[in-house]
Amino acid sequence: MAKYGYGVDIGGTMVKMGLFTTEGELLEKWSIPTNIEDEGVNVIPDIAASINANIEKHTLDKKDIIGIGMGVPGIVEKGGFITCVNLGWKDHPAITRMRERTGLNVRCENDANLAALGEVWQGAGKGKKDVVMITLGTGVGGGIVLDGKLRSGFHGSAGELGHIPVNPRETRLCNCGNRGCLEFYASANGNVRLAKDVLNETDMDTPLRSIEHLDSKILWDLAIEGDPVAVDISEKFCNYLGLGLAMIANIIDPEMILIGGGVSRTGEPLRAKIEKYYRGYAFKPVKHIDIAIATLGNDAGIYGCVKYLLDE
Amino acid sequence: MAKYGYGVDIGGTMVKMGLFTTEGELLEKWSIPTNIEDEGVNVIPDIAASINANIEKHTLDKKDIIGIGMGVPGIVEKGGFITCVNLGWKDHPAITRMRERTGLNVRCENDANLAALGEVWQGAGKGKKDVVMITLGTGVGGGIVLDGKLRSGFHGSAGELGHIPVNPRETRLCNCGNRGCLEFYASANGNVRLAKDVLNETDMDTPLRSIEHLDSKILWDLAIEGDPVAVDISEKFCNYLGLGLAMIANIIDPEMILIGGGVSRTGEPLRAKIEKYYRGYAFKPVKHIDIAIATLGNDAGIYGCVKYLLDE
Repeated sequence: MAKYGYGVDIGGTMVKMGLFTTEGELLEKWSIPTNIEDEGVNVIPDIAASINANIEKHTLDKKDIIGIGMGVPGIVEKGGFITCVNLGWKDHPAITRMRERTGLNVRCENDANLAALGEVWQGAGKGKKDVVMITLGTGVGGGIVLDGKLRSGFHGSAGELGHIPVNPRETRLCNCGNRGCLEFYASANGNVRLAKDVLNETDMDTPLRSIEHLDSKILWDLAIEGDPVAVDISEKFCNYLGLGLAMIANIIDPEMILIGGGVSRTGEPLRAKIEKYYRGYAFKPVKHIDIAIATLGNDAGIYGCVKYLLDE
Repeated sequence: MAKYGYGVDIGGTMVKMGLFTTEGELLEKWSIPTNIEDEGVNVIPDIAASINANIEKHTLDKKDIIGIGMGVPGIVEKGGFITCVNLGWKDHPAITRMRERTGLNVRCENDANLAALGEVWQGAGKGKKDVVMITLGTGVGGGIVLDGKLRSGFHGSAGELGHIPVNPRETRLCNCGNRGCLEFYASANGNVRLAKDVLNETDMDTPLRSIEHLDSKILWDLAIEGDPVAVDISEKFCNYLGLGLAMIANIIDPEMILIGGGVSRTGEPLRAKIEKYYRGYAFKPVKHIDIAIATLGNDAGIYGCVKYLLDE
């Protein structure tokens, strides 16, 4: 019975890593920079060297290690080839390369999917079996855990909650090529876009007009202080999220919804406002399910990596 | 190893029944009327008597029968209590009652969920593992099969696709108490509602104005003949469906989408038009999945009942 597992969350700037017990205890965590030069050809060798050094430092026996779980900001297709624009990877055989360099079992999944699995294992969803997590960051991602297992989807794209169409009347294009995606309004960038839309539509005075670089935190701080324009923006933001989450819940009927990602640091004011709109759109059987803020923060992904190895 | 199974699809007017081999062959099918008097207290005794008579007729050994699968037009809650407005049932212990009267194993699920499972077992989804089926009838229902198994949901309401919010700007109420549900536009009744909306908005001449009782078939017949107003109605109808199906596919990433129910008898003109809108709204990885018309018709439910017994 393996006793340890490595979680590796590969981001465009940093790679977060953790050594866990298979019971779910995080023993050590550290980061290394992501070297995306030369189509990201060094990313896997750098990670493998770091893990091999960690194994040596703790004089671990490889037989005691269940493997390496990796989270990537992209879709892992059948066959294990991975395309991640942020890492410079195109059909990159990352899993095979990592196996070759470590001699360990390796599994790889989308980072937001693994964050959801991590929260269900040791975070805000602990003890639950049917959980949807939405991740509000630069973009909007998500993950779906059904009957305790991650739903990857037939093409590896289940839980891509940022691209649910929530506004068929939108004329501007989302990065994905469609229009009216949830991410277009409910990401950190979307929040700023909504703010600009509202500022263009109103003549009301607001401190927002004098701020050169608007961001989601400033918008929420002012909304919490009661600035009417910022409040209006926050209502629109949460309306889209409540609508999107109601669509999801009406379809898959989960036990709980979690909200994670950088924007979720706003906490209860955000949660309560999303919940208000959600309840207005949700079908009766799912109207009163728990909606909670995720608790593992940036570590959710590395937790999920190890749980994903255990679920193999 | 059991050789036979009974499928029982309980509707508000008729109960459809079938005797199947566990290989999926329908050996015999028949119907009895649904007696919904006295809060539907006779529904289960009538079905049990009919099945007991069938067992006797074929001199089957109960050891050779895997059980009775039942589909009901409602949500089967944890604990097995069933509420179906159409049958007069409120927290009805139908499963226990059926067991007592037949001595057989009994399982019960929502009828649209079982129709999806039936299509995946022996119909248009045969050989597929991840399938969403939407049922366009008096209302809009649906079922979701993931990794070959039915997704019932935490509260038994997964796949209630009729109540996905597709139009946040709607002011009129759906039967469920919310606004802008897919069923409000994409059921047979919704089709007529859309027609009336379009007729009120246009002065164009159309044979539709002289028809006293519009129904979905008349609307589609005229659309196929090329009447511009009927075409406009059919476009709006399929736009809502394409949007709703794209939401579903973006979230759960299925292999295939099936369209069933009475309205689906229109066949290819309906399918192709839904597909057109779907492709406009769907996220890239699921944009080109198969969308097909279901093939088992009214028998899908009884097939699904028996597969549900096999999956226990």
